[in-house]
Amino acid sequence: MLRTLAAASLLAAASPLASQTLPDPVKVGGLRDAALDNDHYAWDIVEGLTTEVGPRLAGTEAEARAREWAVKKLTAMGFANVRVEPFDMPVWVRGQESAEIIAPFPQRMVVSALGNSGSTGPAGITGEIVAFDSVDALRAAPDSAVKGKIVFIDHRMVATSDGIGYGQFGAPRRQGPTVASKKGALAIVIRSIGTDHHRNPHTGVQVFSDGATPIPAGALSVPDAEQMVRILKRGQPVTMRLVLVSQNIGTRQSGNVIAEVPGRDPTLPPILVGGHLDSWDQGTGAIDDGAGVAIAAAAAKRIMDAGRPLRTIRVIWFGAEEVGLFGGLDYRARHGKEPHYALIESDFGADRIYRVDSKLGEARRSEAEALGKVLAPIGIVTGKFEEADGSDIGPMLADGLPGITLAQDGTRYFDIHHTPDDTLDKIDPAQLRQNVAAWTAVLGVLSGSIEEPKRPKRR
Amino acid sequence: MLRTLAAASLLAAASPLASQTLPDPVKVGGLRDAALDNDHYAWDIVEGLTTEVGPRLAGTEAEARAREWAVKKLTAMGFANVRVEPFDMPVWVRGQESAEIIAPFPQRMVVSALGNSGSTGPAGITGEIVAFDSVDALRAAPDSAVKGKIVFIDHRMVATSDGIGYGQFGAPRRQGPTVASKKGALAIVIRSIGTDHHRNPHTGVQVFSDGATPIPAGALSVPDAEQMVRILKRGQPVTMRLVLVSQNIGTRQSGNVIAEVPGRDPTLPPILVGGHLDSWDQGTGAIDDGAGVAIAAAAAKRIMDAGRPLRTIRVIWFGAEEVGLFGGLDYRARHGKEPHYALIESDFGADRIYRVDSKLGEARRSEAEALGKVLAPIGIVTGKFEEADGSDIGPMLADGLPGITLAQDGTRYFDIHHTPDDTLDKIDPAQLRQNVAAWTAVLGVLSGSIEEPKRPKRR
Repeated sequence: MLRTLAAASLLAAASPLASQTLPDPVKVGGLRDAALDNDHYAWDIVEGLTTEVGPRLAGTEAEARAREWAVKKLTAMGFANVRVEPFDMPVWVRGQESAEIIAPFPQRMVVSALGNSGSTGPAGITGEIVAFDSVDALRAAPDSAVKGKIVFIDHRMVATSDGIGYGQFGAPRRQGPTVASKKGALAIVIRSIGTDHHRNPHTGVQVFSDGATPIPAGALSVPDAEQMVRILKRGQPVTMRLVLVSQNIGTRQSGNVIAEVPGRDPTLPPILVGGHLDSWDQGTGAIDDGAGVAIAAAAAKRIMDAGRPLRTIRVIWFGAEEVGLFGGLDYRARHGKEPHYALIESDFGADRIYRVDSKLGEARRSEAEALGKVLAPIGIVTGKFEEADGSDIGPMLADGLPGITLAQDGTRYFDIHHTPDDTLDKIDPAQLRQNVAAWTAVLGVLSGSIEEPKRPKRR
Repeated sequence: MLRTLAAASLLAAASPLASQTLPDPVKVGGLRDAALDNDHYAWDIVEGLTTEVGPRLAGTEAEARAREWAVKKLTAMGFANVRVEPFDMPVWVRGQESAEIIAPFPQRMVVSALGNSGSTGPAGITGEIVAFDSVDALRAAPDSAVKGKIVFIDHRMVATSDGIGYGQFGAPRRQGPTVASKKGALAIVIRSIGTDHHRNPHTGVQVFSDGATPIPAGALSVPDAEQMVRILKRGQPVTMRLVLVSQNIGTRQSGNVIAEVPGRDPTLPPILVGGHLDSWDQGTGAIDDGAGVAIAAAAAKRIMDAGRPLRTIRVIWFGAEEVGLFGGLDYRARHGKEPHYALIESDFGADRIYRVDSKLGEARRSEAEALGKVLAPIGIVTGKFEEADGSDIGPMLADGLPGITLAQDGTRYFDIHHTPDDTLDKIDPAQLRQNVAAWTAVLGVLSGSIEEPKRPKRR
């Protein structure tokens, strides 16, 4: 089906595109369809990284092993200029964690500390639960209602294909701990910012701000949060014992891994494509973001296999994204003033791409339209021409660098995101290939023509 | 849809049934449809038990709290002769547990001890993995290949609607630890006997037999087992550190909770309906088997509400099923020689019933057929007339007591079974009501006519 559409569309698209100074759309369509059919580079990378390294929390020795693995892998794949740009960062690590309702209905609950959580100490803390259905409700409460208690926020996230609610739904995680601390709370537990119903809490970063003292801050799994609501409905005081033994281990090194497909004209600005190499510590970081680094590198490799692009393609596997975009900010500090032809990042799982947005500027409108044409045959709709986003590349896009977003279907992303369940089995190889096909097509258009390697003549 | 079918079928069924000495099928159909529409008894029980007691491992104080809760609940619902029949049993409890690959790719895995597992002690054990794809392959291996190592069995279970594979797929759990122990293994970890892909291992009982010394025995979650296979495929020796601090805490008390709807003729043998009250310790035992006790009691309560049945309905919530059918065997020892009109148990979740089997004997063939007729309108097919099963009631059925099986759709049962994920949110209230409707219809037929309470005449 996709194949038939592709063929039909290429015929239709051939003449208008040919009038631009753009790469041959038939050739780009061929690269795209070959990736859709048989890409194995992306699977090979994400399978290898999640198996041979596994979890790789930013700034830890596991992330350092991931960088070693990455350098070896990208070198073996034939990329040029493979290097690590190191940077320092503060590191927080998880320890023992448990939660237990002491009264009125004794039972264990499943909890995970949020990033930068304070520690309860190994003995834990015990306190009465005070419940709110949003951060705003917590904010509106008098300090006296919160002081010395364990705040519980029951804010439910719903699944959407574009993940639009993450900013809004994430407020209890990002702001809740600070607000609770400033009101004198003993600790805070939130309903996980997630859309599943498994006993796997969703961790994620938060930062105590405005001078708030760190307090223990955790996420209950969604079934546990719903259980808490049912228990609270009985109207009796609810007491919880909470153990979250996490700690700040000081400044450690992280780094960005960079590799290139050198362009024929090294004076032209590079195309920057990437994802992030670090992951949360409980899963193996398959959808977040093993898939992303795999997709970006696989597409670049496919262009490399096809020949030599006019422009350099720079692959970047950012370090320390999860805990505060440290890798993206370091790259920006080093290279953000240099011209870039486009920035693209994959960091929303491995499900199919359904939309392309771009922010290449009015002068490059025909190039942006060409992207839409070469992506349409694999089910991708053209969205906006004035917009692009990305996690690590976000600050540079905000600075005005040009960018492209290949938007993935995120309907099931927040079922898995930041949980122990982020493992390889959650990746659908066929959808992963569609991602690589889209990225290959985009790189085919942006690369400014690919010069095929000279082959010996047939005799 | 179900409603229209019900009406049509009742009209069709009315005359043949009327020729038997059986309860009025129109009345039974009405009770069935009322349950399908608006039963709240079952939800109320399973919601209350899973919330107010939560996990209730056999022989522990949690199961004792469950019995207290049950006695209070069944009494409040108006049942007669509510009582506990206590019995003693050996009790095993879980402690700290963790697993970690030490080499070649250091990373944590998620493990749960199997019932009656030996303990590694708090310091844990470290050993090389030796992998087998079945218990038979382990059996066939020379002892020298196993001695001093950690056995891993990678036997994959597939989902079926009738759960037919549990016996076969469960072999690594039931027999693996004994076989591994007898060959001198240090410990054993198996791929969970489950059909999901979450980081929640499936526990379950096993017993060291043939004089085998207990060794640590755990289940890896399915994603972890698949990760282990990928790691093993790299061909390097794999070393695991395993901590399973479980212990036998000696003899403790459990018990069966019994309640009755007294029949008009107390000389007639009772109909025994039930499920099991105990659960594994990590979930709240919603589908295994809060739903079962709820369905059985709700149906009995609906008959009680409708009037007084000719025969006594005896509701039993068995204790200590999970760890060895202790409750069923205790009931059998006390009452197994007494006549029973039929035994029925619900212990396969809360998804829809799709089949009725019975073993009532040739003399009661018309009654068995009447069951099929009153169940067909809610989508239930008549199966066999010579077969019935059940967990706690299994030994008594084998002894020759008559029984009925209302077979539930088990397609997703083994996604959740024996995991922390067995929580209330997994129960679909509409399917739960269909279960109650079916059970109510069956009790309507078996009860031998229901005498409605006399109501004051209208003025």
